[in-house]
Formats: sequence, structure tokens, C-alpha cells
Amino acid sequence: MKLTILGCHSATPLVNAHTTSQVLELRDHLFLIDCGEGTQIQLRNQKIKFSRIKHIFISHLHGDHFYGLVGLISTFRLLGRTADLHVYGPKGIKEIITLQLKLANSWTNYDLFFHELDDDQSQLIFEDDFLTVSTIPLDHRVYTNGFLFKEKIGQRRLNKEKIKDYKIETYDFQNLKLGKDVMTEDGQTIYNEELTLAPHPIKTYAFCSDTAYNEKIIPLIKSVDLLYHEATFLDAHENLAKKTKHSTAKQAAKIAKLAEVKKLVLGHFSSRYNEKSNFMLEAKTIFEMVELASDGKTIKL
Amino acid sequence: MKLTILGCHSATPLVNAHTTSQVLELRDHLFLIDCGEGTQIQLRNQKIKFSRIKHIFISHLHGDHFYGLVGLISTFRLLGRTADLHVYGPKGIKEIITLQLKLANSWTNYDLFFHELDDDQSQLIFEDDFLTVSTIPLDHRVYTNGFLFKEKIGQRRLNKEKIKDYKIETYDFQNLKLGKDVMTEDGQTIYNEELTLAPHPIKTYAFCSDTAYNEKIIPLIKSVDLLYHEATFLDAHENLAKKTKHSTAKQAAKIAKLAEVKKLVLGHFSSRYNEKSNFMLEAKTIFEMVELASDGKTIKL
Repeated sequence: MKLTILGCHSATPLVNAHTTSQVLELRDHLFLIDCGEGTQIQLRNQKIKFSRIKHIFISHLHGDHFYGLVGLISTFRLLGRTADLHVYGPKGIKEIITLQLKLANSWTNYDLFFHELDDDQSQLIFEDDFLTVSTIPLDHRVYTNGFLFKEKIGQRRLNKEKIKDYKIETYDFQNLKLGKDVMTEDGQTIYNEELTLAPHPIKTYAFCSDTAYNEKIIPLIKSVDLLYHEATFLDAHENLAKKTKHSTAKQAAKIAKLAEVKKLVLGHFSSRYNEKSNFMLEAKTIFEMVELASDGKTIKL
Repeated sequence: MKLTILGCHSATPLVNAHTTSQVLELRDHLFLIDCGEGTQIQLRNQKIKFSRIKHIFISHLHGDHFYGLVGLISTFRLLGRTADLHVYGPKGIKEIITLQLKLANSWTNYDLFFHELDDDQSQLIFEDDFLTVSTIPLDHRVYTNGFLFKEKIGQRRLNKEKIKDYKIETYDFQNLKLGKDVMTEDGQTIYNEELTLAPHPIKTYAFCSDTAYNEKIIPLIKSVDLLYHEATFLDAHENLAKKTKHSTAKQAAKIAKLAEVKKLVLGHFSSRYNEKSNFMLEAKTIFEMVELASDGKTIKL
């Protein structure tokens, strides 16, 4: 699992401060999370192949999280895309995009599916053989979801040496991976644990932007490997955070601590602060394993 | 009159090739013409004060000409703008912008006026004491206008030495500027030409993007000081230009020649061409006074 931050600043794009967008890579998936204005330029800066993106998750309909979406959808068409594209986001996102394509007398030459969200409870919105994606309902000025990306527990792994010792036939391999015991030609049962190793540990990533301090999310993000949590403000502006339904660095750290996450990444910084290191300093007073997002940063899990 | 090219490339923004947007400065006006994705970043790159923009002209509703508009309108709000903003563009533009603001549960804290265009004939759409702006109906795949910016003939200028010689009183100055004759105290009529100089010559700028080769625009842009005409393709792709209702560099040059403009600027280059100098070479076979647009270029008239 590899996370690439394309932009992590709030409100409005500046010359070297892009608004929210991230790419999460997991096996053959490339998930785009939020899509502020200029995301397609940031994808090019990071040399990410546009055609590998098949799923886009939009947290909410504030401009700094989705104004780049319609341009990206248009560019996919110009690049001759044929693969399906799935967009997950709040109710209304389909109307916004389709209105603009209609007025441009244009449509996509690939199938574009909108999965509109309006539930206040966590929902499973994507699932395949390897992972699930669920919503994390957040507390912001408009309807907003974070997203939890969770690998599925994989198959058990064959212990090649033991398999050789017991002369297990290849047609039993799949049963072993599924956790079943096998029987040798002379009728002896060999227990699965003898022949296999535990599956690789699963990885989990939780994206939470934008939100007021909200302990309700803790059960949903419990013990994740990586939590991205917004920290728009420093402690001095806690009142402003409350008023605008954003979080401070300390509040994000408190959520990380209560949820016992392995690592916290802070982002969505207000442009009022020139010195970003204070976000780190304030968060570290509460939670040690913290780092700051920056445009272009990658984090491997 | 000063033109700043913010972006002059077609279809989709690349890392160093922004889509269409220009700023025209004239006296205290700063007119924004088209607004592709990332225009607000380009405005910052050029250090143009956002608050000076009060009028935005959108040629048509293809993304590379207006996907940056909603972000700019939002940023104006975040910057605490209070001055009115006027947006001129095709019918539908109001619906696109207001839908996005509505779904963000947001509105502007300044007055935002939409002037929707749907006429196929040239219309006067803006006028003040110093200039007029008229549409130039173009021939593209969707309803499209170019824009003609035309200074008004100014007042006659006082010839200070002559005014001293004739001892003209200050209360007559305004009449002189308006071209009237004046009478001295002893009843002598002094003709206006004796006391004043001709007004400063007027300047005219025509913006024409996107359009197929279209001789119908020639009377509208006759003898302008500067013509920006799209040249999406080179001669080798004339068929593609015809099919997509764009122009080649030669076609743009032919329009410039027939309209007897003083200078031609080419832009809206397709990203298929790495070498832009060929646009110049091909245009020069027909019209000598040509230059190529580039992101960040300024042209003073």
C-alpha cells in the first residue's frame, strides 16, 4: 500500500500549495481520493498514469476537494480512455458533472458510473477480492465522508519445505491456501497449520478530511496503520476550528491516540500559517507517531 | 492597453502548458478573458491582483476555456471580496456556477452578475466612458463568441501654450475638450482646432478562440491593432481543423490579412506539436506581422 499526496492545503490553490488530492496504490488498484483544482497537473508531476485510475472518491462538495474532477473526466476522454470510471461522492455530484458535459455538447467515450452517497452511517461502498472501502461519516458544514481502505485477509501461504517433505500434490495447494487439511495417498491427515504459514498481515488506511473533532469516528478507524486527519488550524485558532467545523493539530492527534492508530499524517493546512512545523510540534504533545503531509510526498505501508 | 497571456494551449492543461486565459488591462480595467483550469494559479504567477478583476468574458463552455471559473469565484469569496463581479458567457453558465455554489452550501459575499449570451449576431455587451466590448460570433462546435475590445475616441487635448497665449479661462476647458469653439472676453470666436490637439488614437483588440475559418468575422475585426486568433493545427492537419471546427495557422493568417489587422497573435496550440515555431513559419507565408502566444507573455499596445 502506497499513498501519494498530490495536494494537502485548504481553501484555495496557491502556486506551491495544492488543494486536497491523494492517490492510494494497492495491488493493481490506483484509487484517487478527492480532486481539487489542478489535480490532473499534479498527477502528471508525479508521473502517474491516468489510465490506471478507475475509482475516484470525493469526500464532499467544497471546491478545494472536487473542482478538478470535471477537468480530469474530460481529459480521460481526450486521452481516448475506454475503461469504466467509478465516482463515489455526495448526492449532487452527478448533476454537477453531467450538466457541464451536456452544456459542452460532450460526453465520455467510456462508461462513467456515479455512486452517490447520502447515508449518515458508515457504508461499504466498494469491495473486490483484495479490499473493501467504507465511508467514515464526518462532521463538517456540508455532508462529508472520509474513507476507510481495508485489505482483506489473504489466503494462507504454502510452506514450500514442508510441502516437499510430505510430497503434497499440486491439486491440493488451493485447499491448503483456503485453510483446509489434506490427506496423503496412504490415508494420513495432515493438518493445515503443518503445511502453511499465516497470511500476510493486512494494511488499513483511513482518510478523514474535512471534519470537526469527532470521537464518533474512533470505532471505525480503530488501530489503522495510517490515518490522514485534517488539521486546518493550530491551537491558537481552536475557536475558528469549532466555528468552521475543522480540526486543530492537537484534536487530530487526540483522535489518533484514542483510536490507537499506528501512524498519523496531518494535512489540509490553512494558508494563514507560513511555518508548518508548528502542526507537528503541537500534535506531538499528544501523539508521537505523526508526520506532516506535503505535496508530492509518498508514504509506503 | 496591455495583454497578458495566462494560458494558450488547447484541450487539457499540461505541466507547462496552461489552457486558455488572458488578462487585458486598459486604464483602470482588468478584463479576464476565458478561464481554463488553473487560471487562479496563473494569475498568482503573474502577480495580478485578484481584486482588480471585475469583468470576466467566457467564449464558450468547453472545459479548457472555463473550468477554472468556479474556483476563481470561490477564491474571490475567501479573499473577502466585496466589489461586484460581472460574468459574460453563453447561456448555461449561470446554472453551472450556481449549482456548484448551492451544493457547497456556499454563496458569494459580493454581488455576482451573469450576463448570458445566446445571440448569433454581434452585440454590444459592455460600455463605459472609455471603451466598448462587443461579441464576435464564431463558428465552433458549441455556441461561441470572440470579444472585441474597443477604446472610445477620447476628448480633444488642450494645447497648453495656445491656451496661455489666448488667455482662455479654466471654465472653458471642458467645452474645448468636447470640441466646442470658445469666445474671448472681447467677443472674438476662437476655433477649437486652434486651441486643442486631436485625441489620443484609440486601440482595439479582438480575441477569437475557438473557431473554424470564418470570413464572416472580418468586418467586425477590420483593422484592429491586435488580433488573437486560434491556430490549433498546422497545415498538415487542415482536415482535422475542419472536422473539429478549429483553424490552422495559415487560416488564422488569412483572416488577419483580409481584415488588415496591425498584428496577429496565434494561440490555442494542440499538444500534438512539440515545436511551436512551425505555427509562425506557416502563418508568415501569408501575413508578416505575426507572433506566437506563450504562457506569461505580455503584449503592449
